[in-house]
Amino acid sequence: MLDPARLSIHQVTLLQQCSTPQFVAALARNGIPCTSLWRDKTRAHGVGETARLVADNGIVLSGYCFAGLITSADRTEAAAARDDVRRALDEAAALAAPCLVFVAGGVDPRDRDIAGTRERALAGIAELIPHARSAGVKIALEPLHPMICATRSVLSTMKLANEWCDRLGADDVVGIAVDTYAVWWDPDVAAGIARAGKRICSFHVSDWLADTQDLRLDRGMMGDGVIDLPALRGMVEAAGYDGYVEVEIFSQRNWWQRDPDEVIGVIKDRVQTAA
Amino acid sequence: MLDPARLSIHQVTLLQQCSTPQFVAALARNGIPCTSLWRDKTRAHGVGETARLVADNGIVLSGYCFAGLITSADRTEAAAARDDVRRALDEAAALAAPCLVFVAGGVDPRDRDIAGTRERALAGIAELIPHARSAGVKIALEPLHPMICATRSVLSTMKLANEWCDRLGADDVVGIAVDTYAVWWDPDVAAGIARAGKRICSFHVSDWLADTQDLRLDRGMMGDGVIDLPALRGMVEAAGYDGYVEVEIFSQRNWWQRDPDEVIGVIKDRVQTAA
Repeated sequence: MLDPARLSIHQVTLLQQCSTPQFVAALARNGIPCTSLWRDKTRAHGVGETARLVADNGIVLSGYCFAGLITSADRTEAAAARDDVRRALDEAAALAAPCLVFVAGGVDPRDRDIAGTRERALAGIAELIPHARSAGVKIALEPLHPMICATRSVLSTMKLANEWCDRLGADDVVGIAVDTYAVWWDPDVAAGIARAGKRICSFHVSDWLADTQDLRLDRGMMGDGVIDLPALRGMVEAAGYDGYVEVEIFSQRNWWQRDPDEVIGVIKDRVQTAA
Repeated sequence: MLDPARLSIHQVTLLQQCSTPQFVAALARNGIPCTSLWRDKTRAHGVGETARLVADNGIVLSGYCFAGLITSADRTEAAAARDDVRRALDEAAALAAPCLVFVAGGVDPRDRDIAGTRERALAGIAELIPHARSAGVKIALEPLHPMICATRSVLSTMKLANEWCDRLGADDVVGIAVDTYAVWWDPDVAAGIARAGKRICSFHVSDWLADTQDLRLDRGMMGDGVIDLPALRGMVEAAGYDGYVEVEIFSQRNWWQRDPDEVIGVIKDRVQTAA
């Protein structure tokens, strides 16, 4: 059983049917203690305004999502991308979010050099560490699914996230976000989670539908798919993680079409029975 | 430069625009020495008829594609699936194909036990070895992209394919098919290919389009995407592979819509410049 005080509902789970004020109101009236905010929505509503809104409703943040995409082969573009991450870290600090979800970036079609891209990403993260430390916000490296390696993230496995953390040597300010949808398939996921240990600073759940209609925007509710979510939660908890369980469901055809209170009700049930 | 005698064009590359006789005729008039045949098409045309057709046109096979899907949690279903693989091995033998591309199967939604599924798959392959050996056809284990782990293949990495081969201890009759589209993202692909060595019995090329419209059916022509194909070919050749380079492009919106001779002409060019 998950302690209800550990439930966080990510803003993307109600991305289409709620503005930020509507989303926060829905969390508050359903007794949800925590959220992770989506950066686009937060900036649209205003960072300061959003910070007041969540605080006034007694809601805390488990994270701020997302920034990164620093892998351009062009030095000027890459520097601009790093500056944008620094702004996102400042926004996360203003929101009192403990971490910023970091999405590395994809392979630059101009150079097709995936190993070189990974080295560039790692060097770029190293440059961001001082800013993250002074902002008091962890950079949560999120291994993302290999299917978005070309466009969004060359950080594809827990193993590589651990290797990057080893090389950065900054565990005080660089952690790892474990997303079940991104890592469930990995034959070495158990070893990767165990090795990550206290680096794990964020844990996201959703399910992989066997009959998925869209690999990216048709994620399933916990219990509706093929991922053994209790097993994965057991692994992160055995590794020392006792923080929020963040429900993050991108679902164009189903959950984004439903009433917010209905969705939240199903989540409250499913985190007990299927996560 | 690729020796043109090493070019094989997989039947799926012209799947929609050609019947089997049209496909074989297109290969013959363009001087393509080798193909890998698609099982559905082969059975529709007749295995014996197809065998005569390719032989009469002086075309050899680099493989027969595919069979497998043996991961059902139901014993009767799994036994029936293994019987189907045995039939496919016999068909491959009749076609004089050196290997049968083996697709493991996905996670059974009824048990959600991915580690258990992988053990079932491995045990099932072990049962197929005597039949493969007597048919004289290699089982080519093909690690497939993690995005199809749920439905098609729990064999997701070169590392796992090597582990399975180690445990099977039957390198004379179980090999590994390396598909660039499936493995290019893997941070450990170089190590996996080097470890595979002479186990590599099949090598498939296509490209990953940065602006892909469909992750499964919008593969790109070599040179149009983000995969460093010459680097991957260098790895398999350094590992000892000197067989056919098989062009396998699933492309609903582009290459399947084009004239067969045009497609083959582009392939002949691109294998020299971009693969």
